[in-house]
Amino acid sequence: MSQAPQLATLPSGVVTLADHEQHARSVMDDNAWAYFSGGAGDEITLRANRSAWDALQLQPRVLRSLAGGHTRTHLLGHALQHPILLAPVAYQRMAHPDGELACAHAAAALGAGMVLSTQASVALEVVAEAVLDEPGRGPLWFQLYLQHDRGFTRELVARAEHAGYEALVLTVDAPTHGARDRERRAGFRLPAGVSAVNLSGMPPVPALSLQQHQSALFDGLLRHAATWEELEWLQGVTRLPIVLKGVMHTGDAKEAAQRGVAALVVSNHGGRTLDTSPATAAALPRMADALQGTLPLLVDGGIRRGTDVLKAVALGATAVLVGRPYVYGLANAGAVGVAHVLRLLRDELEIAMALCGCATLADATDAILWRADGA
Amino acid sequence: MSQAPQLATLPSGVVTLADHEQHARSVMDDNAWAYFSGGAGDEITLRANRSAWDALQLQPRVLRSLAGGHTRTHLLGHALQHPILLAPVAYQRMAHPDGELACAHAAAALGAGMVLSTQASVALEVVAEAVLDEPGRGPLWFQLYLQHDRGFTRELVARAEHAGYEALVLTVDAPTHGARDRERRAGFRLPAGVSAVNLSGMPPVPALSLQQHQSALFDGLLRHAATWEELEWLQGVTRLPIVLKGVMHTGDAKEAAQRGVAALVVSNHGGRTLDTSPATAAALPRMADALQGTLPLLVDGGIRRGTDVLKAVALGATAVLVGRPYVYGLANAGAVGVAHVLRLLRDELEIAMALCGCATLADATDAILWRADGA
Amino acid sequence: MSQAPQLATLPSGVVTLADHEQHARSVMDDNAWAYFSGGAGDEITLRANRSAWDALQLQPRVLRSLAGGHTRTHLLGHALQHPILLAPVAYQRMAHPDGELACAHAAAALGAGMVLSTQASVALEVVAEAVLDEPGRGPLWFQLYLQHDRGFTRELVARAEHAGYEALVLTVDAPTHGARDRERRAGFRLPAGVSAVNLSGMPPVPALSLQQHQSALFDGLLRHAATWEELEWLQGVTRLPIVLKGVMHTGDAKEAAQRGVAALVVSNHGGRTLDTSPATAAALPRMADALQGTLPLLVDGGIRRGTDVLKAVALGATAVLVGRPYVYGLANAGAVGVAHVLRLLRDELEIAMALCGCATLADATDAILWRADGA
Amino acid sequence: MSQAPQLATLPSGVVTLADHEQHARSVMDDNAWAYFSGGAGDEITLRANRSAWDALQLQPRVLRSLAGGHTRTHLLGHALQHPILLAPVAYQRMAHPDGELACAHAAAALGAGMVLSTQASVALEVVAEAVLDEPGRGPLWFQLYLQHDRGFTRELVARAEHAGYEALVLTVDAPTHGARDRERRAGFRLPAGVSAVNLSGMPPVPALSLQQHQSALFDGLLRHAATWEELEWLQGVTRLPIVLKGVMHTGDAKEAAQRGVAALVVSNHGGRTLDTSPATAAALPRMADALQGTLPLLVDGGIRRGTDVLKAVALGATAVLVGRPYVYGLANAGAVGVAHVLRLLRDELEIAMALCGCATLADATDAILWRADGA
Repeated sequence: MSQAPQLATLPSGVVTLADHEQHARSVMDDNAWAYFSGGAGDEITLRANRSAWDALQLQPRVLRSLAGGHTRTHLLGHALQHPILLAPVAYQRMAHPDGELACAHAAAALGAGMVLSTQASVALEVVAEAVLDEPGRGPLWFQLYLQHDRGFTRELVARAEHAGYEALVLTVDAPTHGARDRERRAGFRLPAGVSAVNLSGMPPVPALSLQQHQSALFDGLLRHAATWEELEWLQGVTRLPIVLKGVMHTGDAKEAAQRGVAALVVSNHGGRTLDTSPATAAALPRMADALQGTLPLLVDGGIRRGTDVLKAVALGATAVLVGRPYVYGLANAGAVGVAHVLRLLRDELEIAMALCGCATLADATDAILWRADGA
Repeated sequence: MSQAPQLATLPSGVVTLADHEQHARSVMDDNAWAYFSGGAGDEITLRANRSAWDALQLQPRVLRSLAGGHTRTHLLGHALQHPILLAPVAYQRMAHPDGELACAHAAAALGAGMVLSTQASVALEVVAEAVLDEPGRGPLWFQLYLQHDRGFTRELVARAEHAGYEALVLTVDAPTHGARDRERRAGFRLPAGVSAVNLSGMPPVPALSLQQHQSALFDGLLRHAATWEELEWLQGVTRLPIVLKGVMHTGDAKEAAQRGVAALVVSNHGGRTLDTSPATAAALPRMADALQGTLPLLVDGGIRRGTDVLKAVALGATAVLVGRPYVYGLANAGAVGVAHVLRLLRDELEIAMALCGCATLADATDAILWRADGA
Repeated sequence: MSQAPQLATLPSGVVTLADHEQHARSVMDDNAWAYFSGGAGDEITLRANRSAWDALQLQPRVLRSLAGGHTRTHLLGHALQHPILLAPVAYQRMAHPDGELACAHAAAALGAGMVLSTQASVALEVVAEAVLDEPGRGPLWFQLYLQHDRGFTRELVARAEHAGYEALVLTVDAPTHGARDRERRAGFRLPAGVSAVNLSGMPPVPALSLQQHQSALFDGLLRHAATWEELEWLQGVTRLPIVLKGVMHTGDAKEAAQRGVAALVVSNHGGRTLDTSPATAAALPRMADALQGTLPLLVDGGIRRGTDVLKAVALGATAVLVGRPYVYGLANAGAVGVAHVLRLLRDELEIAMALCGCATLADATDAILWRADGA
Repeated sequence: MSQAPQLATLPSGVVTLADHEQHARSVMDDNAWAYFSGGAGDEITLRANRSAWDALQLQPRVLRSLAGGHTRTHLLGHALQHPILLAPVAYQRMAHPDGELACAHAAAALGAGMVLSTQASVALEVVAEAVLDEPGRGPLWFQLYLQHDRGFTRELVARAEHAGYEALVLTVDAPTHGARDRERRAGFRLPAGVSAVNLSGMPPVPALSLQQHQSALFDGLLRHAATWEELEWLQGVTRLPIVLKGVMHTGDAKEAAQRGVAALVVSNHGGRTLDTSPATAAALPRMADALQGTLPLLVDGGIRRGTDVLKAVALGATAVLVGRPYVYGLANAGAVGVAHVLRLLRDELEIAMALCGCATLADATDAILWRADGA
């Protein structure tokens, strides 16, 4: 676990999310850094997520009225100050002793939504209780993997509901770990004192003995992999809206819509599962085109600038999630660092809106995207 | 403020504008360098401006008659020796004690036009008086932001008219500062003795108290952002032609033409406002196509070579503006350095014309651009 | 010849094939490294082979049933545990004293096929005897160049048949060496104790005296170059199926199919013959389109990841061959290293299949490839 | 002038033209290096020339008959051993004391054509006499600029005819020097003892006094620039065929054909005149398409590999010229170095032909070029 900064003050010269990342490298130990910063395989998708936003070009407009402008929007019935949420990230106490609790406070103060990871290192009830009554806070959601043990999952869902979480975010793009080579090279292991406290007491996966030439994956782990049937089961045991996270195929998106999920997160798990899968910025417009507004879309992966947020909205997203950047802010200065990351993103978003002539996010249609072919 | 070179002699080995830039880095202090050289955000647009000119290819021609060739053109009724103007750049005394005055002298001597910035560090009257009577000088224009105080703006316009400026260049692409991260990282501040002397006495922006979750931008600064109505007001209070600077959208260009502006500058503010906006070399042909010659077009952004000037003309520009390069020349050797920059550009332009078989700029149609697709 | 590692243990931190390559560089001497790692000319094709797989994007799918999944397939009547074979590589005892024998053991243990090179540094009978009876092993094939001496070739074929090899892989893309500049710069020569033992006793090529301006290639070596007629001759002297290796042109592929070869390997000889020939990942789909499934296709060249294997299958390959990576594994840790390379590839293939929603290789159609144009 | 190597032996490890270049850098002084290696402006075209050949892909073929293969061709009635000529390069005694004479010997020995520069540092008669009677030599041509003094030019042409040159190569792409910034930065000047001996006695250009704002180029040098009329004049004073060098526009090519020139060299002067002009490999196919075989085409610019030669032929060239590489060979080992460069190119050409299934250059149609779009 990283040494906590003595004073929660921002290091000087940190004025962008990239600065936060660079500074965090010097604050985190190698173990935590490999875990949070790494991607799958050769990290082609990790880099593509980032470069895809950079490659999109914005169309400046001039002399348009910006009076009454704002960044507000709505999501699953919740009024948002701005369309930025904290993505679910596990084991945040590896980055800072305050972990998820610091992030929840910062998110509430800055009006950002928060999605707590199933593998959070702080109890889900503690997080919820700390921020549920904050004025102007964003939505508070709970992220879920469908575990092999239905009884335990049902109990976990019940705890989340009881604690006040407003939606379940079901991550479906990771039936198995990706080839996290950077973690493996670093010999990653959870430090003492950090664990997935909300999964405590979960029954272990039943042991399995494999024969030669059998596969630990296909003949083992994947026998329990979740399918659309498990989604149906989950819908039957919760009253919360379900957000499906990790959808990159239009057919899957339509299936999800038909089956009554509340929203989708276009995501490749931050480039941590299937390397050489496409950038989310490339997938988002196809999803938007396939769904035609029937479901709200969120997107994550490589969002580091307010211009990225604006581009995501222009491509059809209602809101975006950021992951690694706020963990870096957390490592750099606890809750203050997370708040700073959110502040920077919102400020940059507003500047970008103004320079594209958008008084509100409703003005951010795809007409604000410059097309190289003039279309 | 930088130490003034003892002797206004050119450093050896400086034979291109890129050489001037490299040398200026060693002459300027970090504060001035961050201000003049930096762009918005990750400086993607700053680099794109440059690389877009490089990517355009010229079509050589041979054995064509070049007799009687020249680089002359006309702009708003002014005969130009060549199509190169100095773009408005603020606070030039940060680069050299002689500041804008040195640049005006150099421009006049080399037959280049000059656009004085509203935020010039030398009084507008001093600059005008020094060069108005120079034979063969280019146009002398005054750049303007629409300030929140109409009375002050009207007075400023009157001073410019009275001093002999021949047009107003209204910058419309910066209702707010861009995310100038390099400046912020460097902790940029104006050095003692350098200020926007022409804005001295301008009433401060009225103070504003914001509530939580309110935006300093939308709920503050942008309430006063200029719109097409303010342009109309300005047209009512001046007899000078108005050049709109910062137009990158064909719709905005057409609106400007309809509203009677005299010319447009296709510009993204040198990559200093909206990062990931397109390169001006990409926007220029669209503007030319939209306006069909109804208004003269100028362009700036990344012009560093005579070949760039020729390409700009081939894409529809009547003239170009250069910014940073002449500030670097100023830092390197005062007026002599600025003159050298202009000399290099003109010489290179002539070579490029000759090798493309253009005796005059009228020959520089888009037929001199090589199209990769053979069109 | 490289010093053999004292203990056949894997170096720590080696978790990918790229890690094996990097580590092997420190284990091999310059002579062996130049031979195994080098390509032809400027190694443009060598790099293109690699980058072409990287550039293909996979389409993630979610919540599909993966029950009963596996990587099994069939090839020339042989059941394969997975679609990965060891490509023919000469002189493996330069990498490790155990040479081809170690590789054969590792391949059998991991269920991979093996193609023994004509220029193997271990007797073909020794290799075959060691592994023919291993349960679950992959196919065992013998690679052949058509030598200038038909009698010797016929005898070699008879030996391979007698030893139990199940197919002949006729390499047709190297009538002459490529411009192996890296080898030439390094002054490559076979170390003492390593030779093409299976070619021992082959009569030398008849001497030839050239006149000035004559060509050692056209007027010498190429007079004996194999043509389709020599293939016919070979078909007449063997009962084994013939796999043609090195086909990159659809016309050649169709000709081969008409002439009754059993399978094709789409290959550019690992970028070792004709530099600037296309990447095999680019050629493969054209071959598949031309043959319409009439012949099984294999492919090699730049395969370093399980995702590459899956992409190859999606583009129409029944199986893939890897070359340099297993030689690096061999250099790093003998048979254990080769087995590790195969294990990594298979594990990564399974992960990729699961994340693309493929329970079996039959599910790996080209629908799992993301097309940038949305097709 | 560079120190002559003591022994004309090739440095070890030099096995490609790129190796020759790298080694020459350590042999030449900065002055000569700047002159020979530099290009115009930012050297974008210089690099593009090279990368354009690299980007073209060759289509391997297998099992085709290569019996009776050779690299012979014809050019202006001259039988060539292979399609490689030495391009005109000035002042070769800067690279080696033997200068142009060494190159002529090497060319003749290797069956390569040679084009002597007007600015050669050895008398044209000396060069011709040395090689005219060599068996199997390639064509011997004389390169010409149209000088301002017609009388002197006519005399120079008569000398070339009398000495036995077989064609005049009229360079038309350099009415003015390009912006040779690398030379200017290095302060290039001819070393003592090296001069354009064949221009000795040429009357100087008449002096000219310019007024302010006048152009040394348009109002000075270019008043004498050659046009199509000067070509006509030249045709009237010589019995030699005229090859036009520096044509990059299809209109110019057609005009030249109509006016009875004997051949064209598609050339951008090795990237030394107009920076950002297209690569010759891009221009060549357009020229071939425009001329439809009515004139033989040659090409230079960036040819460093036998594969490049083969690609040039496939795109429509009858032969190619190489420039800098043989000067590097000359600097490295005198005539031996030049011969080595030619030997490497021819050997590589033959290998490439064999691997593309071309027995002769007539087989090198554009079908041997792989098209990324499958056309």
